[in-house]
This record gives sequence, C-alpha cells and structure tokens, in this order.
Amino acid sequence: MKILVTGGAGYIGSHTVLELLNAGHEVTVMDNLSNSSMESLARVEELTGKTVEFRKVDLLDLPEMKQLFNLVKPDAVIHFAGLKAVGESAEKPLWYYQTNVTGTLNLLYAMEEAGCTSIVFSSSATVYGEPESMPLTEKINMDAQSCYGRTKEHIEDMLVDLAASDPKWNIALLRYFNPVGAHESGRIGEDPAGIPNNLVPFIAQVAVGRREHLNIFGNDYPTVDGTGVRDYIHVSDLADGHLKALDYITSHQGLHTWNLGTGNGYSVLEVLHAFEKAAGKELPYKMVDRRPGDVAVSYADPSAALSDLGWSAHRDIETMVRDHWNWQKNNPNGYEASSIHD
Amino acid sequence: MKILVTGGAGYIGSHTVLELLNAGHEVTVMDNLSNSSMESLARVEELTGKTVEFRKVDLLDLPEMKQLFNLVKPDAVIHFAGLKAVGESAEKPLWYYQTNVTGTLNLLYAMEEAGCTSIVFSSSATVYGEPESMPLTEKINMDAQSCYGRTKEHIEDMLVDLAASDPKWNIALLRYFNPVGAHESGRIGEDPAGIPNNLVPFIAQVAVGRREHLNIFGNDYPTVDGTGVRDYIHVSDLADGHLKALDYITSHQGLHTWNLGTGNGYSVLEVLHAFEKAAGKELPYKMVDRRPGDVAVSYADPSAALSDLGWSAHRDIETMVRDHWNWQKNNPNGYEASSIHD
Repeated sequence: MKILVTGGAGYIGSHTVLELLNAGHEVTVMDNLSNSSMESLARVEELTGKTVEFRKVDLLDLPEMKQLFNLVKPDAVIHFAGLKAVGESAEKPLWYYQTNVTGTLNLLYAMEEAGCTSIVFSSSATVYGEPESMPLTEKINMDAQSCYGRTKEHIEDMLVDLAASDPKWNIALLRYFNPVGAHESGRIGEDPAGIPNNLVPFIAQVAVGRREHLNIFGNDYPTVDGTGVRDYIHVSDLADGHLKALDYITSHQGLHTWNLGTGNGYSVLEVLHAFEKAAGKELPYKMVDRRPGDVAVSYADPSAALSDLGWSAHRDIETMVRDHWNWQKNNPNGYEASSIHD
Repeated sequence: MKILVTGGAGYIGSHTVLELLNAGHEVTVMDNLSNSSMESLARVEELTGKTVEFRKVDLLDLPEMKQLFNLVKPDAVIHFAGLKAVGESAEKPLWYYQTNVTGTLNLLYAMEEAGCTSIVFSSSATVYGEPESMPLTEKINMDAQSCYGRTKEHIEDMLVDLAASDPKWNIALLRYFNPVGAHESGRIGEDPAGIPNNLVPFIAQVAVGRREHLNIFGNDYPTVDGTGVRDYIHVSDLADGHLKALDYITSHQGLHTWNLGTGNGYSVLEVLHAFEKAAGKELPYKMVDRRPGDVAVSYADPSAALSDLGWSAHRDIETMVRDHWNWQKNNPNGYEASSIHD
C-alpha cells in the first residue's frame, strides 16, 4: 500500500516508517520539521535500503495538503503530526488546538476530497484522565486533565462523529501508553527539543552528561516504592501496532479504538535502576514535590489489541532501556551533529 | 461599550442586539447570513431608533476577521455565530467542527491580536448530556450526546484552557436551556430555515397553517403526562442575561459559567396547550416514537446566575407562547416576504 505518514520524521513516526518500508509499503512522509529532523529519515533509508518520499507541508496549509494528496494519492494515512508537550499546551492553548485539532480537520478534508478514507490516529492514554481503577480499558470515558490531552480527546470525538456519519471511513484510534526505547540499531531514537518532558529521555540525558540529575516528582504515592507507576512500551512494539492496525482497518469498516501498552507498570525508581544497569553507572536523582495532575498508577488493559489485531508488546523493560541507552550514547546530542552537514 | 456581536442577525443575536442598543451600547454585527436575514437588523433599528453597523464576514475567513477588528476595535464580543441543528451535525460533522470550533478559534486569534479579551459565548444545556439528577447545575461534567453538543463542549474546553493560560481574558460561558418566544413587538422572532428542529417554532408553524400537525416524540416518559419536560426560556430574558454577563466580566477576570434557564420544566403537552390558548385554536398532533438521545426531563438550576449576576428569567410560559404566536401570526413566513424587497 501507499501510506502517507504525517509527522513521519518524528520519534514514533520514524520508527513506524521503518517498519512500513520493511513490510513492503510505499511511504510518503509529510512533516513541517518543527520538532524533527530529516536526518531521521536519512537513517531510516540507510537501515532499510529503501527510499522515503518526503514533503515539507504543514497541517495548517490546506491548499498545499490538497495538492499533496492529488500528487501522492495515498491509500491510507498514519497521522502522527502534532504538538505534544503538556506544559507548553497549558501556556499556549490556542496554538495547541489549532495545530492538533484544526490541523487534523484539514487533513480529514484533504483526505475526503482525495477519496482516501483510511486513517490511523496517534491518540494517547492521557485521554483517560484520572480514573479510579486499573487497568485502563478502552471503554472508560475520556476525561483528559490537560490541554494537550483535550486536543487528543477532541480529535477522537471528531473521528467518532465522522465514522458515524459515513461508513466509507476506516479509522483506528491508538491510545499510546508511555513510548520509550529506540530502534535496536541505535541509529534512530527520540530527540526531544529542550528539556525532555518524559522520564526516560531525561534519564538518558543525565546518563550522557547533558543533565545534572533527575527530579522525581513525588515519592509518597501508594505504589511499590512511592514513585509513580507507568506502562512503558518499546517504540518498535508501538510501530508494529500501527502496521497491525492499518492491516485491520483495510478490511474492517468503521472506527476502532485500541490501547497500545504492555499491561505492566514500572515505577520511576524501577525504570531508573534498570537504566543504571544498562548504562553501567549510578545516576543522580532528587526527590521533589508531586506535579499537579499526575496520577499514582497508570497501565493498560491491552487485551483488545491482542484479540482484534493479534498484537502484543514483546520487548521488556530491560530491552527498552538498553535500546534507549544505545541510541543516546551513540548520539549524545540526538540528530544535531549530523544535521549540521545537511 | 462597543460590542461586536457575531451571528447578530440570528434569533437570539437580534434580540440581544436590540437590548444592547437600548442599554446604550454601540453595536457592530458580524454575520455571514447563512441562516439569518438582514431584515431582522432593519427591524431592530426601527424598534430602537438606533443604527447597527453590519459586516458580512465569515468566521472561517481569518484575514477578513482581523481586518474587521482593526476597523471596529470592539471592547468585547458576544459570540452567537455557529451551526445549531443536531440532526444535521450528525450528517456533516466535519462542517460542524470546522464552522463552530475552528471558527471560534479564528475569532479568538483575531481578538488576541486586536487586544480584545472579553467574550460572552453561546453555549448550551446540551453539553450536560444525560445526567441522572435534576436540576442541572454548572458543576455537572459535560457529556454531550450529539456532534452539535460536542462542538459546544470543545469550544468551552478551549475557552477554559485559554482563561487558565492568561489572566487577561474575561470569559462568560452561557448555557442556554430552550429559548422560545419573541420580542413583545412581534417584529423580530425566530425564523427557522426548513423544518423547525425545536418544539415551539414547529407548533407556531402548525398554528399558522404551514405544517399539518405536530409530532410528539414519546408519551411514555416518567413525567406529568408522559411527554418530555424542558426548561423553556423567553428569548428576551435570555438577551437580558447576556447584558448582565457582559457587565459582570468587564469587572471580573477569568472564566465564568452560568445556566440561563427558568428552573421550571414544562411538558410538550403543557406547552402545546398553552400555545393553543394563546392562538385561540386547537392544534392537531400525533404521538410518535421516542427520538434516540432525548431525555425525559431537563431543567436548570439557575441560582448561580441569580447570585452572581442578579439575573433571573421573568417571563412565564404564557408570555413566551403569546409572544411567539404574536410574531408568527404577523410574520407567517418569517422575514421572507420583507426581504424580497431588500
């Protein structure tokens, strides 16, 4: 199939593009490069021995996007593009709603006009908010607790209404838990701009000497060691989930929602210690106050993806941190050094 | 104050413009006239002896809207413009999200650029969905059951996040219950395009001979007579609520949410019989099946608006149907006959 991947130069995007190419799909990446690097795609080409078509187009530029669909004529879209920093979303909500929600609306208009009606959408477990019981199943009502989370919730609402309005649409909503790790080659990985918002990239930057210490937000949660528990999932498992979801929707009409998580929770300290083991060094950390909005424990019920898609995450926490560290130590400043030569 | 009223040529808009002019405000109406008539504003001018500045601009045309703000320099915005048919929203969800949500986002960008940061927004009691207990207070979580309702919910979310991001914003969310009636002059009123979606306009068209009979959707609800109970509110009371909310937010920062309803519920049959009394004739009706998504009973707790704004609805159901009938019998085809002469 010919797949258009929006945000395909980003972290999860580039790993998914790699798997799509390996599976024999033809891939066009559409990305505005606002928070990603062409270098990731150069390395994907190097790893796969295949080529990726690239188009620098912004979701907010509807005329350009329509032109792109006319030229590319994709069979399906995997839609990663969007802003993703929770803290930033609280400061610049209009920008987040515009980029994520209006951007997706534009994409759907362009798809509709081009007769392309299959889409896999990057949602997030953050749409669940603060539910009272674990594990999280897809049936729990959405109740996002941040502006970023609300943009995901709004897009889900839009796609649900779209699927209900017209059976020609085939839609997968994938709710990611906490993506970490990197391709086993260590050639592509997460390259956050500025201070990392997520735990493992932050630990990795401490390990490589770019940050002095890790702040752990709260050690009095009702968990195994008092620190927050999350469901970390290897980005290559996540990428695989996208391929399975894509296959599924091409033969199943309507809208489908799947958690992509392992179903296992690890505490901040457990992840830190696993990383220390992989990196072969102790990593300094400080206990600081809880952050507002953080829940004690969050992990997926991934059984729907298993029964519908035959998908489950195979890589354990040791593999996740090993691969993350492998990427980070080989690319201490992410793609930066390479892209200077572009 | 200089007030920009989007959708000011529409039903609630035109009644609010009239009250704004009577209160001494300067008013500019921005409307794309997609579902309204200039004639309403001509009549508002005739009733008030004042003039209304009119600009035909669409919410989706951001450059034109920015230009409008530069020219008009309003102190505050009352934002009515939007699509409002529940059934239609299920058929054309992208159009509803684009017009209502992206349209409002554009408006907020134009306001921000112009330094205009006071807005009164037309929300709806439909955001409450199907809660288990009555009356409805503003604290109940939103859970809209239609695409139309979700567009209102999304706009509320956006405004809540905007207010949280920057204290310069003054925002009122007004959740309307069921607006009916017309200005006591009978010169302005509701002029629905096509088949009316709401009860009282439908009854009025039966009374004036444009429809054969009323369909009553369900007579086995657990209510006084088996038919659904709603909180009808006179459009002039509603208009008054906008002026009070506008006054309030100009001296209170942040975001405020108020129900605008009477707190009293009337059944479909009670409304029909009140209308028959006003019109002096019996009106034919048929009992038909319940509509999916309709709740048995819905009425407001309007106490927050009373304590914060000193506002409450004064006009009773007899006044509502008398004024609605007065408008309808004097304008059997709405504004149509008049606008032919435009």
